[in-house]
Amino acid sequence: MPYTLHPTLDKDTHQVTDYPLCEIRLMDNKLFPWLVLIPKREGASEWIDLDRAEQHQLSDEIAICSHIFQALVTPDKLNIAALGNQVAQLHVHLIGRYKADRAWPNPVWGSAREYYSEQERARFVYDLKSALDSAM
Amino acid sequence: MPYTLHPTLDKDTHQVTDYPLCEIRLMDNKLFPWLVLIPKREGASEWIDLDRAEQHQLSDEIAICSHIFQALVTPDKLNIAALGNQVAQLHVHLIGRYKADRAWPNPVWGSAREYYSEQERARFVYDLKSALDSAM
Repeated sequence: MPYTLHPTLDKDTHQVTDYPLCEIRLMDNKLFPWLVLIPKREGASEWIDLDRAEQHQLSDEIAICSHIFQALVTPDKLNIAALGNQVAQLHVHLIGRYKADRAWPNPVWGSAREYYSEQERARFVYDLKSALDSAM
Repeated sequence: MPYTLHPTLDKDTHQVTDYPLCEIRLMDNKLFPWLVLIPKREGASEWIDLDRAEQHQLSDEIAICSHIFQALVTPDKLNIAALGNQVAQLHVHLIGRYKADRAWPNPVWGSAREYYSEQERARFVYDLKSALDSAM
């Protein structure tokens, strides 16, 4: 079945790049460096809706994104989560957290949001895409 | 280095069983069926502090626990998360969520907590351990 991105994810995030399993997108919230990895598997909502090889690929893509976040934005901690209570389509959040950020030490969901300016977003997406494309 | 469980995790959770990579424990909150998987690797706080084979093993152990939660407690959705803002020791939450639970559709952290009675806990730990030990 062809893969379709959920309209809420489409609205909240901007495309960065395409990995073998996941579409990798940037959450439009400049308060937190925040990627969303969406496996391109129609109908998947749980980790275990992927087969085992895909689960390992998802882990590999999370790992690459984690290394790139550590290099580019040097967070104090990474948060990784597949929740899906609001949008069932399987998606994994990777969020760089700082002891001085607006939500610390709490999770970011339900916390504040500020949109990137178009220029800020274009620049961050460019840096992320360059690093992600070199790493794959 | 020998692995030591962080005292906060030790206090908040009860041992269920031991898997090849992770210690698997039950969060003492009867409002949400909630396992915590702690990789037995001293000093690990990020997913990428594990080597690639261990990351895949962690994915496999998350998958087994997910299948067992689906069989035993039939949640509407599973939440999987490695946050670690409060306790840096790498640990993965696996939480069975229901559309009628106390936090839905929000994440569970910071939501209500009710402890199991000793009898309830012993029974749930027994059921979980039986299922997890058969699956490994």
